Amino acid sequence: MTPAIDANAAPSLVSLGPDGHAYPIPPPEALAAQLADIRERAEAHRARGGQVVAVQGLGFVGSAVAGVIASAQDSSGSPLYFVIGVDLATPASYWKVAKMCAGDVPIPSPDAELTKLIADCVRKVRNLTATVVDEAYALADTIVVDLPLDISDRFTETVHDIDICLAPFERALETIGRRMRPVALILVETTVPIGFCERVVLPILRRVRSERGIETPVRLAHAYERVTPGPHYVDSIKRFRRTFSGVDAVSAAAARDFLASFIDVESYPLCELDDTNASEMAKVLENSYRAVNIAFMYEWTLLAEKIGVNLFEIVESIRVRKGTHDNMRYPGFGVGGYCLTKDSLLAQWSATTLFKTGIELRVTLEALRINNRMPLHTLDLAIQLAGGSLVGVPLAVAGISYLAEVADTRNSPTEILIDEALRIGANAVVTDPYLARWKERSAIPMADDLDSAIAGAQGIIFTIAHKPYRELTAEELRRRAPRARFIIDGFDVIDDATAAALHAAGIRVAGVGKGHWLKRGYHL
Amino acid sequence: MTPAIDANAAPSLVSLGPDGHAYPIPPPEALAAQLADIRERAEAHRARGGQVVAVQGLGFVGSAVAGVIASAQDSSGSPLYFVIGVDLATPASYWKVAKMCAGDVPIPSPDAELTKLIADCVRKVRNLTATVVDEAYALADTIVVDLPLDISDRFTETVHDIDICLAPFERALETIGRRMRPVALILVETTVPIGFCERVVLPILRRVRSERGIETPVRLAHAYERVTPGPHYVDSIKRFRRTFSGVDAVSAAAARDFLASFIDVESYPLCELDDTNASEMAKVLENSYRAVNIAFMYEWTLLAEKIGVNLFEIVESIRVRKGTHDNMRYPGFGVGGYCLTKDSLLAQWSATTLFKTGIELRVTLEALRINNRMPLHTLDLAIQLAGGSLVGVPLAVAGISYLAEVADTRNSPTEILIDEALRIGANAVVTDPYLARWKERSAIPMADDLDSAIAGAQGIIFTIAHKPYRELTAEELRRRAPRARFIIDGFDVIDDATAAALHAAGIRVAGVGKGHWLKRGYHL
Repeated sequence: MTPAIDANAAPSLVSLGPDGHAYPIPPPEALAAQLADIRERAEAHRARGGQVVAVQGLGFVGSAVAGVIASAQDSSGSPLYFVIGVDLATPASYWKVAKMCAGDVPIPSPDAELTKLIADCVRKVRNLTATVVDEAYALADTIVVDLPLDISDRFTETVHDIDICLAPFERALETIGRRMRPVALILVETTVPIGFCERVVLPILRRVRSERGIETPVRLAHAYERVTPGPHYVDSIKRFRRTFSGVDAVSAAAARDFLASFIDVESYPLCELDDTNASEMAKVLENSYRAVNIAFMYEWTLLAEKIGVNLFEIVESIRVRKGTHDNMRYPGFGVGGYCLTKDSLLAQWSATTLFKTGIELRVTLEALRINNRMPLHTLDLAIQLAGGSLVGVPLAVAGISYLAEVADTRNSPTEILIDEALRIGANAVVTDPYLARWKERSAIPMADDLDSAIAGAQGIIFTIAHKPYRELTAEELRRRAPRARFIIDGFDVIDDATAAALHAAGIRVAGVGKGHWLKRGYHL
Repeated sequence: MTPAIDANAAPSLVSLGPDGHAYPIPPPEALAAQLADIRERAEAHRARGGQVVAVQGLGFVGSAVAGVIASAQDSSGSPLYFVIGVDLATPASYWKVAKMCAGDVPIPSPDAELTKLIADCVRKVRNLTATVVDEAYALADTIVVDLPLDISDRFTETVHDIDICLAPFERALETIGRRMRPVALILVETTVPIGFCERVVLPILRRVRSERGIETPVRLAHAYERVTPGPHYVDSIKRFRRTFSGVDAVSAAAARDFLASFIDVESYPLCELDDTNASEMAKVLENSYRAVNIAFMYEWTLLAEKIGVNLFEIVESIRVRKGTHDNMRYPGFGVGGYCLTKDSLLAQWSATTLFKTGIELRVTLEALRINNRMPLHTLDLAIQLAGGSLVGVPLAVAGISYLAEVADTRNSPTEILIDEALRIGANAVVTDPYLARWKERSAIPMADDLDSAIAGAQGIIFTIAHKPYRELTAEELRRRAPRARFIIDGFDVIDDATAAALHAAGIRVAGVGKGHWLKRGYHL
């Protein structure tokens, strides 16, 4: 039996991790040996009464989910599951498998609980491993799907042009269908368009299983994840509310039992919805809601600046209304990440393509467009403070990650700002204390650290409130950026006192939503 | 001295209250006698070390605010204030003064605390009264402004057409300016456009006071109300967070002292903002936020119905995310009331007219438009279930008030539905258990009670979840509406079991956001 690896991956290929380390992709014979070892351990676990879980996709979600499932124990402290993470033998993906096999979190996490949990499960308990070999699915009682499902162009402006990259997802499902045990439960955690499990996933699995002569009902459930990379990574899986549904009662019951085995359901009860359409809608609705509330605040940000009021102070005064207004968003630089930037498009694709409803989610899509434009407002403030042009102006853009204190660059709003800054001729460089390289944009000039970015800069733009930025004093900024003529605070990085001191020292200062600074003339 | 009453009010005029009672407007000599009595009592109160408060406008807000201020006591249990409510001697307004003078809440309240508090202050403590005579302002240390400030057409579609009915408000301020003590504090509680206190109120007061030779600074503050008519009426004034600001430090300090004297600031601390622009923006922003969140849910309501899922269940599953998603709105019939239907227009008027910013609050205004259309969706469901036409169909519309268990018809969304229902030829009648008449729409056919509305109806539309509606069983509905062929649940009035029983009995049923009913074929 030949292990199935990506046909395009030559044996000599390496996979480059975001840490800069190169991981050689193993040759077929090494993979076959690894599979034999995994099979032996999995079967031994099953022989002891345990179950086997495969997690398809080891990205931000799958790697953490695999770790949390592996850490689940029975009442005597024995591991419930033998867990196999599965990803592709491609240069873009293999490094995750390699790191997981070594007991490391693929993407370094600020949550020490996750780091320890994966290290312990891989190295001590030895019930967690990873592979690129498809046969792993044949070992599993439960297969958790944590694949990405992308939009080919998230800046699509018209409803009918929304294009979802279905092919890789469909191929991955076919792989599962070809290998899976007939009664295994497939649990889709990926955020998918409404109707996807019933109308896309189920038909594929039925067809491929039928080719194998399996005509029994597919056990398929949907339980979308709410994983939040950051200091509460594990909490966001284990100690957080989870919504799920099954395509039939058997699937729903199996999903409930499985989820309850690793989630603290005493404190965070599961929420079962009527059907997979409902839980699929729940996920894209909850993220669209967030995206709309951010977009809503954008137009009030522009108004607050024009009128000369401090919108942060105003929002804070409104958020005291607990239960009705306490989740109002503050002004900010922009929206990034994998979910809020695209989930609304999945919903619209369902409305248009899958259900042909004729409905256009107008407010929801307008919010996406506004959020896509938002980073340009911060750039506009920079242009204004530079005296009307950034051509040739040495500019430091501090912040690439879209989340403070996290190294997550997926769909970062900094992309939008830096592309435009470079297009209009700024001499711009980016920096981020949590990143050694920007894998999505390796061509953008990147400084080794803040000091080398700002040392010669005439303008500095802060795009995220990383702690090292928030802790900068006016004096430090003046000393470390002696040529700075203007500083833009894109995301509430600079407090009023620092802004006043910078302006007193002859540096122009403006901030998103900080109309009171403009009223005080800090931009002059 | 002749009491100043409205020049157009002939002495023989009467004022008709919403309870149907006619209150004759007193002749000048009676008003003069009343003023003399008020002056004597106010001066006696001041002689005892107390202060005098005038409240301008005795509507939903002013009447309750006057009562709460009158109920404030010092540590020995003596009343802090002698309070005079002031309204106009017009047929549209005088009834409020008459009822207040008699110790009754002008608009009957489901909050027993308010009823008792006003009765006690007027009849027992005798430190609360009301009048139409402008000289009352001359007695006051603090003048609280609770006037309405209306939009001439809240359905305005273009930014430049927004027209605020400034004249009555400006005249009322001139009246205050002509009468007020030079050092009296004017506290504006009315929701006003951003910039209004600085750019409209202050210039008027300065001009009128200057004509009297008063050149000292005006003491002017803004402290917008969050009064919620209903069972927690008094709580919404006395035990609720309040935001305020002054046009200068003296005004802000005076406002803080005054507000702290009748609000439970130990448990609900005051929130002071930088300037009146900021607190004015806070109010219109907080209501716009709410309006946008309602509008957002509308497009998902349409989608949920088309896809056949229960959006209530979905929203409930999302609202478990405390602090970020727990204020997501449920699907509903529409938006009513005085604030959410117009406050965004005040903000846009400021952006366009007062500050000439060129900014258009696009998401915010689109939300208003969506909310204005929303009631027509419920009507669409009725047309669909009636087989395509409502021409000549006997139709009962149950619910006029926009709030459950409250008799508040201001900008009720039922207006939008009933206008269109009548226009397209339905034989429609309205009913509401909390209303004897619909003062804004006295020409609309109104039934005496639910039974007479539905007895002959072929179709019933529930527009608000009043308790008497929610308690109806399928059996009762069939018995009391024997000719009913369809029932539309506009606002989550009917539960799943009732809907199933109605459908089993041959009645078609549909509900806003209840796609699962459509999926089950209840509309067939």
